[in-house]
Amino acid sequence: MMDRARVYRQMEKDFEKHVENLLRFVRQPSVSPQNIGVRDAAELLREMAGGAGFRNTRLVETSGNPVVYGELDVGAPVTMLVYTMYDTMPADEPGWTVDPFAGEIRRVEPFGETLIARGAVNTKGPLVAFLNTVKAIVESGQEPPVNLVFAAEGEEELGSKNLPEFIRKCESQLKKADVLFFPGASQNSKGKAIVTLGVKGIVYFELELDGKQWGRGPTEFGIHGSNKAWVDSPAWRMVKALSTMVDETGNRVLVEGFYDDVKVPSEEDEALLSRLAETFDEQEVKERMRVERFIEDLHGVEALRKYLFTPTLNIDGLWSGYTGPGSKTLLPHRITVKMDVRLVPQMQVEKTMSLIRSHLDKHGFSEIRIRRLEEGYGWARMSVNSPYTKALLRAFEEFNVEIEIWPTIAGSAPFSMFAAPPLGLPFMVGGMGHGGLAHSPNEYLVIGEGGPTGGLLTMEKSFAAILDKVSTLKNF
Amino acid sequence: MMDRARVYRQMEKDFEKHVENLLRFVRQPSVSPQNIGVRDAAELLREMAGGAGFRNTRLVETSGNPVVYGELDVGAPVTMLVYTMYDTMPADEPGWTVDPFAGEIRRVEPFGETLIARGAVNTKGPLVAFLNTVKAIVESGQEPPVNLVFAAEGEEELGSKNLPEFIRKCESQLKKADVLFFPGASQNSKGKAIVTLGVKGIVYFELELDGKQWGRGPTEFGIHGSNKAWVDSPAWRMVKALSTMVDETGNRVLVEGFYDDVKVPSEEDEALLSRLAETFDEQEVKERMRVERFIEDLHGVEALRKYLFTPTLNIDGLWSGYTGPGSKTLLPHRITVKMDVRLVPQMQVEKTMSLIRSHLDKHGFSEIRIRRLEEGYGWARMSVNSPYTKALLRAFEEFNVEIEIWPTIAGSAPFSMFAAPPLGLPFMVGGMGHGGLAHSPNEYLVIGEGGPTGGLLTMEKSFAAILDKVSTLKNF
Repeated sequence: MMDRARVYRQMEKDFEKHVENLLRFVRQPSVSPQNIGVRDAAELLREMAGGAGFRNTRLVETSGNPVVYGELDVGAPVTMLVYTMYDTMPADEPGWTVDPFAGEIRRVEPFGETLIARGAVNTKGPLVAFLNTVKAIVESGQEPPVNLVFAAEGEEELGSKNLPEFIRKCESQLKKADVLFFPGASQNSKGKAIVTLGVKGIVYFELELDGKQWGRGPTEFGIHGSNKAWVDSPAWRMVKALSTMVDETGNRVLVEGFYDDVKVPSEEDEALLSRLAETFDEQEVKERMRVERFIEDLHGVEALRKYLFTPTLNIDGLWSGYTGPGSKTLLPHRITVKMDVRLVPQMQVEKTMSLIRSHLDKHGFSEIRIRRLEEGYGWARMSVNSPYTKALLRAFEEFNVEIEIWPTIAGSAPFSMFAAPPLGLPFMVGGMGHGGLAHSPNEYLVIGEGGPTGGLLTMEKSFAAILDKVSTLKNF
Repeated sequence: MMDRARVYRQMEKDFEKHVENLLRFVRQPSVSPQNIGVRDAAELLREMAGGAGFRNTRLVETSGNPVVYGELDVGAPVTMLVYTMYDTMPADEPGWTVDPFAGEIRRVEPFGETLIARGAVNTKGPLVAFLNTVKAIVESGQEPPVNLVFAAEGEEELGSKNLPEFIRKCESQLKKADVLFFPGASQNSKGKAIVTLGVKGIVYFELELDGKQWGRGPTEFGIHGSNKAWVDSPAWRMVKALSTMVDETGNRVLVEGFYDDVKVPSEEDEALLSRLAETFDEQEVKERMRVERFIEDLHGVEALRKYLFTPTLNIDGLWSGYTGPGSKTLLPHRITVKMDVRLVPQMQVEKTMSLIRSHLDKHGFSEIRIRRLEEGYGWARMSVNSPYTKALLRAFEEFNVEIEIWPTIAGSAPFSMFAAPPLGLPFMVGGMGHGGLAHSPNEYLVIGEGGPTGGLLTMEKSFAAILDKVSTLKNF
């Protein structure tokens, strides 16, 4: 049995170094969608994992960005695969109040010392906190109570497209794992711990139309806008096509068969949802996102049911023609629309994509091209009655925080790749600590203690607690 | 009577200098939509106009960019207002094979020496050619046969929004004018001269929706795409609104009352159209624009009728959310659509804009904001039987080219501001010479002679011929 008090003292003693580790890592950009700094970040992370005590650290090459891999086999009965990612979203959107790669720590009310940086919460903060945790265990003269396999991918924000390749390559090592753990910051802004038991699937693609593929409109470049009178417009055409895909509100998808395989919420889901609605802090969520109303003016359990169990067809971005200042009259030759679908059980990626293709064809828009930017991946779910879920809950309970169980999140993570054969791993997600604005300007992670949420230290302690609780599970 | 042979010899002698004048002017950017180099271009043009022989040259300040003004009063019975513009479109679109502001002359088949530059044909080329013409007349020891008032505005590509202010300021000088002349390159790529008797009106605006004005969706920044499940999407909402504005083809405008005031083609229009259809080179136009088919697969006179006498609602550009490489899941908080309407007789700008507002409101989209980027201006038309049109035709006939008369172009120019009270000026447009790809990459103007079209020298000669023909009109 690991002496956790000794580990905690080590963490407290090394706190400044732990913060330095975190700053060092967020200062190394690793923007996979723009291919900025990714390999440098992988090299740095390999070094940091080795420094934390992992052995056999290496970059496992894939067709895309490498996976940073390490092992720490202590001969324990339980083996945990720590899956995480070292890549981030771009940070070129307006609204940042700091350089997103400077690693700036500011006092932010009511949290106290807070890191504002791209990747702060998604997911460099929790990643480094986990490495800090392992390092503190080792430097306290002990060993982790479970064997660890560490795998940090560099393409999560690209849809983890080469993660299956990594899993095939390292299948024999990964098969030793009993459970997957994804370190995260589970507390909301008021300190409540959010335990999430699942994720939605996702597939990301572009719809595109230009005059060349259409055989109508300008084929090679935008032409003078006055030609609209006798030349077709790919932009207008795309508008008409998009318009057939959703109802007037933009919230009900009209792609035929889109909802056919939706088999949620289950009875367990509904039970969790009812409990969740009792503690769900609607106002906190709305304030954080700067959203005044949910769709259909839903509240409480109805809003949550929509959020967690509805598949979506989202416009992530679109552009055509002249987008600069002032006026330029142009009949654009091309329009591009970035879209994603979020899948809920039992929807399947390939079937969903073929429904969208059929929909466009059936409505006469066969000239519109679908360009998959990612292979996509499925949803994944754990039961609240799984021993791993129970171990996670016991770890969280040690921190005397309110706990809220979510049957799933609305977001996506590629747990299905590990949950499906051949690995078939159960999974656990989270930890103490709080951050927010992932994918938005001023993404943050709380560092200091004393505010409504745990800081970096509490996060690290909770990771140690989770290792402890999981280590006993082979005795069940 | 001006001895034109002497003027022509002077032009031939000074040809290299005339080309240099042109290169000098296109090398000075004057991109009014991006406010790049505009005032420097105005100063340069003032100097060049003075150098050509204009007196009282000055910058007439307006609320926006200044108008370059000059006079050359020779005591002739006829006074011509030479209206032109020194500003251009941006040149940041992909596809340029040369630096658009380098003033590169290349051999281009079948034209020969050709200037490829932003503004080459629209409108720096014809502008400098006109100044060269005046300079050649003066340097041949003569005077122009008409009094000249020169007015080059710097906001034509911004919709000439402060031109009314200039007209008010200089009304007493402008009132001396009998006719407006707009120097241009009237030949198509095969050498045929296109005489245009009118322009459409235009109004340019943005439709915009964000979560704040809507009271739905993200209000301040884009949020994580997974929130689409319970948060409304301004982008989808705009798609639905746009979709109500046109039919399935994107070609028929569904804004109620949009076509009510359309009173063209008239009998004279139809007569001109029939003649036009006999010589109209459909293939040349399509090749130049890289367009394979006109709307509704129209050909010949039907295509032309559509082109010239149909008002349009065009999408010039639109954007929302993430538009970079790869995938970023985002629920954008804002979408912006740049649009323009082209107006035909007897449509009015203000009425048309209020129809669009009413349409959006009636369809439940009152949350969508219309932002006028320009005041807009009306259509303008001349009769083929006007003495000024006849003078222009007589000048063109001297060059032994096929002549094609267009009752109007589909594009716009603010002639209505001069044609309306208090000035009430008739107008004449054009000259020999050929260029193309205005508002597109690789905009060009033919410089050399010997190809199917006239070059810079022929253009200048034709301007001298026009001055000559107009000078006799007060004897009618």
